[in-house]
Amino acid sequence: MLLTPKAEIQARLDKLLPLMEKASLDGAFFHYKIDYYYLSGTMQDAVLFVPIDEVPILFVKRDLVRARRESPLEKVIPMNGPDDIKPYVRGMRRVGMQLDVLPYNLVLRYKELLPDAELVNASPLAKTIRRKKSPFEIRLMDKAAAIAKRVYGMIPGVLREGMREIELGGLMEAYAKPLGHEGILRMRSLNYEPYTWHILSGRTGSIVSQADSPMGGLGLSPAFPVGASLKKMRKGEPILIDFGINYHGYHMDLTRMYAIGHMPEPFAEAYEVCRDIHYRVLDRALTGTTAAELFQYSKALAEEAGFGAYYLGYGRHKVSFLGHGIGVELSELPFIAPKHDYPLEEGMTVAIEPKMVFPKKGATGIENTIVMEKGRYRILSDVDEGITIV
Amino acid sequence: MLLTPKAEIQARLDKLLPLMEKASLDGAFFHYKIDYYYLSGTMQDAVLFVPIDEVPILFVKRDLVRARRESPLEKVIPMNGPDDIKPYVRGMRRVGMQLDVLPYNLVLRYKELLPDAELVNASPLAKTIRRKKSPFEIRLMDKAAAIAKRVYGMIPGVLREGMREIELGGLMEAYAKPLGHEGILRMRSLNYEPYTWHILSGRTGSIVSQADSPMGGLGLSPAFPVGASLKKMRKGEPILIDFGINYHGYHMDLTRMYAIGHMPEPFAEAYEVCRDIHYRVLDRALTGTTAAELFQYSKALAEEAGFGAYYLGYGRHKVSFLGHGIGVELSELPFIAPKHDYPLEEGMTVAIEPKMVFPKKGATGIENTIVMEKGRYRILSDVDEGITIV
Repeated sequence: MLLTPKAEIQARLDKLLPLMEKASLDGAFFHYKIDYYYLSGTMQDAVLFVPIDEVPILFVKRDLVRARRESPLEKVIPMNGPDDIKPYVRGMRRVGMQLDVLPYNLVLRYKELLPDAELVNASPLAKTIRRKKSPFEIRLMDKAAAIAKRVYGMIPGVLREGMREIELGGLMEAYAKPLGHEGILRMRSLNYEPYTWHILSGRTGSIVSQADSPMGGLGLSPAFPVGASLKKMRKGEPILIDFGINYHGYHMDLTRMYAIGHMPEPFAEAYEVCRDIHYRVLDRALTGTTAAELFQYSKALAEEAGFGAYYLGYGRHKVSFLGHGIGVELSELPFIAPKHDYPLEEGMTVAIEPKMVFPKKGATGIENTIVMEKGRYRILSDVDEGITIV
Repeated sequence: MLLTPKAEIQARLDKLLPLMEKASLDGAFFHYKIDYYYLSGTMQDAVLFVPIDEVPILFVKRDLVRARRESPLEKVIPMNGPDDIKPYVRGMRRVGMQLDVLPYNLVLRYKELLPDAELVNASPLAKTIRRKKSPFEIRLMDKAAAIAKRVYGMIPGVLREGMREIELGGLMEAYAKPLGHEGILRMRSLNYEPYTWHILSGRTGSIVSQADSPMGGLGLSPAFPVGASLKKMRKGEPILIDFGINYHGYHMDLTRMYAIGHMPEPFAEAYEVCRDIHYRVLDRALTGTTAAELFQYSKALAEEAGFGAYYLGYGRHKVSFLGHGIGVELSELPFIAPKHDYPLEEGMTVAIEPKMVFPKKGATGIENTIVMEKGRYRILSDVDEGITIV
């Protein structure tokens, strides 16, 4: 089991502290486990407190022994409840907390501990410092990509006519887990539960759902109305497979197209348009174009190719992003989307996913996770990009 | 795909309204999807608002068409943002919201919409009305149990020496999904992600983790430090399999013991003690004994049998519950635990799990999901209870 090295954690804290200083924070709490994993190396039940001028303290509910083994932080101490934190926050006037995800009642509890402090949302800081990945993180994402390559590689050997979407999803998961896939993807959201089994065939590719995705899928029931369904996959329909991997907390996101027998039109042509958009957008990203401009550029390309109506969804179901940053969350900064007025910079990792949805017919498209590296982009999700016909 | 009937939803609302009245609420919002699924029949991205004296309104972000198909509520209308809700809440003075799970910043946004209203935590109401299950709900749990029976039934055919814990977990999931298992379990918690692949062999059964469980398992990495690991299963060690099923949102929870070759001591004897505790506690539950007393009774039985030190965990890792209610959440009211001073009543469903952990050696125990029915208890998780030797 790989642990996060001390120097890596220190480098992350070194990015955080200037942002805390700029925000005039005396300290910041990180309760949300994705964020304290990034800053401490452990996901044991804990709360990380980073004072502006002292060493960080990881307060651990359970398990203390594991937290101490996993985290290179010096001060990893037991906690029974918030009261144990009180002595460390006396006199603080401005304190960060993750107000976008922390339950209301928990924040009220902390307000009691910090009667004189103004609480400030610390999540923007946590998100900002994660925008660019370190070589250590890229290595983990490369490993996640290697797992994805093997998982996608097994599809042609098992996909057959009459197989249910969910059956294939289950087989892919069963194959991925012993390779190190955690089986869980993560998103900063109250109600959105990400999942790996996004396998849509023919008409299910045109079904939208609660997810902010151009295609949601049917799912198995109203209680999880997304992703693979019990529908049997048939000859001559587009099969879209968007299967995420999580290795040591780091995500890999990619989409490839499959068909049994042959890929029908308009899906075959539309796929090539998506692939063309994908590469032209990435090439333009190298010129320092902003993410917002890249999004508009991609729309113009789709329209030019005659597929504007289907690009990133149809009608009122269009989504407003072409790509999302990816790391310890499946979707994080940066975004290739309107209002994101910054270029893609060295060290950023992005899942770029030009996709098209044809009402009542199905979906097609491509997705790769890339890293901006040495003034170029490198595709981490190195899996054959041709449409696979079985 | 089974939809929740109108009469079922109405009966649930009929349980809610008197509680709202008792709490002097003018209305209550349900943002958390588990709760609005229960009250509306859909998990599309939505917010349910139940006024005290008008029909409930389901405000839907997406997808409206699916929400209207799935929910029998009369008023299912589109919503772009919280402002669309404003006209419906004018003049309200006391409004329920799910303050235990809703993010702080979201509640602040609603405070703006309700400047004159006192906000009250509505989650206790949502939990209370779910304590007892309807025949419709029991039928769904029976279906979940039937899936579990088949999944546990396939284990002897695949479990073999040298297989990794996670490999077996993956195979069980792959088998369960086409039978209707959602692949996701649910818990009301910011940081706890429930999972099905809780397969622990020998020493990994004694590893605790962040989960509030007597045994956590090793997991694959610090980024998901629970459940099945890459450890290979060996001859003569206890293999504890606690694999939850979710069918149409309804959970089924059970644990059985396996071994390759033979089950060593003390695990075989301790298993029989756990099974004995399980049945003696259930028999006593029929007498109207409170849940808190049942918990203490079970501890006394474990001590009497000489296993007190290992019962429900060891040392400071003991958990303080013997059983948990189960339904649309994996863990909900009622609890067989201290301070729960009520008896188990008709219609309640409980996962009862007497387990023992032996430091550095492993874990053993049994878990069944039962329903209190016709003055008796019925075991829903009807899977052979003998230790399975392969």
